[in-house]
Amino acid sequence: MIYFDNSATTKPYKEALASFNKVSTDFYGNPSSLHRLGGQAEQLLLQAREQIAKLLNVQKGEVYFTSGGTEGNNLAIKGTALKYRDRGRHIISTAIEHPSVRESMEQLKELGFRITYVPVNKHGIVSIHDIEKAITDDTILVSVMHVNNEIGSIQPIKEIGQLLKRYTKILFHVDDVQGIGKVPLHLHDNHIDLCTISGHKFHGLKGTGALFMRQGITITPLFSGGGQEWKHRSGTENVAGMVAMAKALRLTLDKQEINQNRMAEIKDFIRTKLEMIEGVQIHSPHLQSAPHIINFSIKGFKAEVFVHALEEKEIYVSTTSACSSKTQKASSTLLAMGVPEDEALSSIRISLAYDNTLDEAKKLVEEIKEAVIRLRKVMN
Amino acid sequence: MIYFDNSATTKPYKEALASFNKVSTDFYGNPSSLHRLGGQAEQLLLQAREQIAKLLNVQKGEVYFTSGGTEGNNLAIKGTALKYRDRGRHIISTAIEHPSVRESMEQLKELGFRITYVPVNKHGIVSIHDIEKAITDDTILVSVMHVNNEIGSIQPIKEIGQLLKRYTKILFHVDDVQGIGKVPLHLHDNHIDLCTISGHKFHGLKGTGALFMRQGITITPLFSGGGQEWKHRSGTENVAGMVAMAKALRLTLDKQEINQNRMAEIKDFIRTKLEMIEGVQIHSPHLQSAPHIINFSIKGFKAEVFVHALEEKEIYVSTTSACSSKTQKASSTLLAMGVPEDEALSSIRISLAYDNTLDEAKKLVEEIKEAVIRLRKVMN
Ligand SMILES: Cc1ncc(COP(=O)(O)O)c(C=O)c1O
Ligand SMILES: Cc1ncc(COP(=O)(O)O)c(C=O)c1O
Repeated sequence: MIYFDNSATTKPYKEALASFNKVSTDFYGNPSSLHRLGGQAEQLLLQAREQIAKLLNVQKGEVYFTSGGTEGNNLAIKGTALKYRDRGRHIISTAIEHPSVRESMEQLKELGFRITYVPVNKHGIVSIHDIEKAITDDTILVSVMHVNNEIGSIQPIKEIGQLLKRYTKILFHVDDVQGIGKVPLHLHDNHIDLCTISGHKFHGLKGTGALFMRQGITITPLFSGGGQEWKHRSGTENVAGMVAMAKALRLTLDKQEINQNRMAEIKDFIRTKLEMIEGVQIHSPHLQSAPHIINFSIKGFKAEVFVHALEEKEIYVSTTSACSSKTQKASSTLLAMGVPEDEALSSIRISLAYDNTLDEAKKLVEEIKEAVIRLRKVMN
Repeated sequence: MIYFDNSATTKPYKEALASFNKVSTDFYGNPSSLHRLGGQAEQLLLQAREQIAKLLNVQKGEVYFTSGGTEGNNLAIKGTALKYRDRGRHIISTAIEHPSVRESMEQLKELGFRITYVPVNKHGIVSIHDIEKAITDDTILVSVMHVNNEIGSIQPIKEIGQLLKRYTKILFHVDDVQGIGKVPLHLHDNHIDLCTISGHKFHGLKGTGALFMRQGITITPLFSGGGQEWKHRSGTENVAGMVAMAKALRLTLDKQEINQNRMAEIKDFIRTKLEMIEGVQIHSPHLQSAPHIINFSIKGFKAEVFVHALEEKEIYVSTTSACSSKTQKASSTLLAMGVPEDEALSSIRISLAYDNTLDEAKKLVEEIKEAVIRLRKVMN
């Protein structure tokens, strides 16, 4: 089996799963319980928080545990909007955000917020000038993803951070679900106030995530109750899941530098080979491009047909993002880039993890070539 | 080690953890992915949903997966209140709900809702008449827990359901986090519209839960995004966690009848023995009482002191609920029952699981007796 759908989800590290088992079996106490079993669980949770904080170069009090990227984005966006709505009711985001950002914005519209979705250029990248132009006295939040999940374009987070530094009223949220472990990003240096990550995208477990919230920021919680996570996210903590996520993040970031380059080389290899196939259109940009995602269309084929053709060879790739794959709608990112709808409907995403090899990439390219020939024959 | 803090959290079943491992290792695909790995994950998720639906005697389309009891309660309460706010802005709940219900209500107050907290009698039980009296034309939701988490009192859910049947505008939510697996409750027969359960309270894993929502009800989601869980709860599904929860629920409910009785016998044994100790005041009611919780105070001792004294003997019990144990506030349930504050501050909760034995109970009682003698000596 060759798995090239790592942007949809990844295989958990053995070590992360082992940690999960250890904690669930031996340290299953409730961190809020006063006795030793509770204290041990609390301690493990604290260690996980400290480890993640250290890996992200932030304070431990700035790491809030969540159930994943969708929760992180919803909490960051709705939580700050509701908290700071007396400061203003305007929010800026982009045309290519993940649905968990986009739909949070749409929900806020119903509550009287005004949203500006900044466009992207044909490479899928927003312009800092468009963001600057969109700012009004009423703006309280800017939310821009770091790495796009469909084409892998990298947004100019540093420049946006520099810009927003001048606007003390505006919070800056970054969805880094696809960037973490692939494209380094310093949170404090870039004036980021909130940043979302999700465990299952870096070989942690599904149902785990974290939200970085800069010290001093408070939000209206989505879950209120027992007061866990400094009252910002109540609920009995998934201690084992958070310990596993800390382990997965460490394993990922420890070997990021070397693996990032290997991954980029494999991606470039795939790109070069794909470009030679007749009718292939590559959508991922050349520059400002993450090392793990390559998105392309093959003229005349529905993406689905292709996914299933490769699946027969036990190669797993994706039609656009996992979330929108079943709705059969064209990728909104590609449409925003100006890709025609029929081309967008035939787009395929290949997404790598550290453990994908060049041999797998060769096999992938061969099978794509063969499938193209075979399917073209069938169609004629 | 003797663990009598099962209302705070339980030890996961080996079988549930094994399922979690199997799914995380072999079926780690994203259920939204179109390829076979995605399809397998989707299938497993569906099976878990069907299994839980069958165990709860409801339709599979009525089971929504969540990250736990706190999410379930917040989603049920805020989700319906926001969705149906044009029907009315009045909600009825009780004085003894879990903070995840209570605080959800308090948040709704800020959004213009009016909340009536119905009192309880000295046994910690609400009166159906008080609920009836509280109903107005503006009432859209009644939320009453099934089994109280601090003293184990069972609320008259059946009677409330009968009453509310006559009010088609009012939704009925039941927090069954403490009741499931201990006190049977039929959801449809009792006209329950929404019901919360949490995996880690019945030997599933932390970070897993489910919300029953009767067919036809829609809510305003807390997490919007990719549209999972019929758009009511977006986010990549914790497939392994849900499979583990389904397994844990089956293992629990399969042996409920016999274990429930055993548990009640052990609880009665503890109760009888405790009553013989001088200065002990039992707070859990005799009648309408769950088989797994017994709450009591020992005159003159802070609960904490006692928890730590028992901990030295490797016996784990709780001061009131886990959630409020660190705030050192008196149990709001006990206060609502009319227990004086100093007595409430010395209350201890013993909570059983199916695997607790009579021998453990004997040892517990012995150690409590000894601790009382020892601590009284120290104090004199
Ligand atoms: C960019 C981006 N943001 C957010 C999410 C949502 O994260 P999760 O799947 O953990 O809910 C995803 C993945 O689905 C993503 O790719
Ligand atoms: C009655 C009751 N409701 C809700 C909850 C919250 O559930 P969870 O711990 O899964 O967030 C608890 C437990 O803490 C509880 O006892």
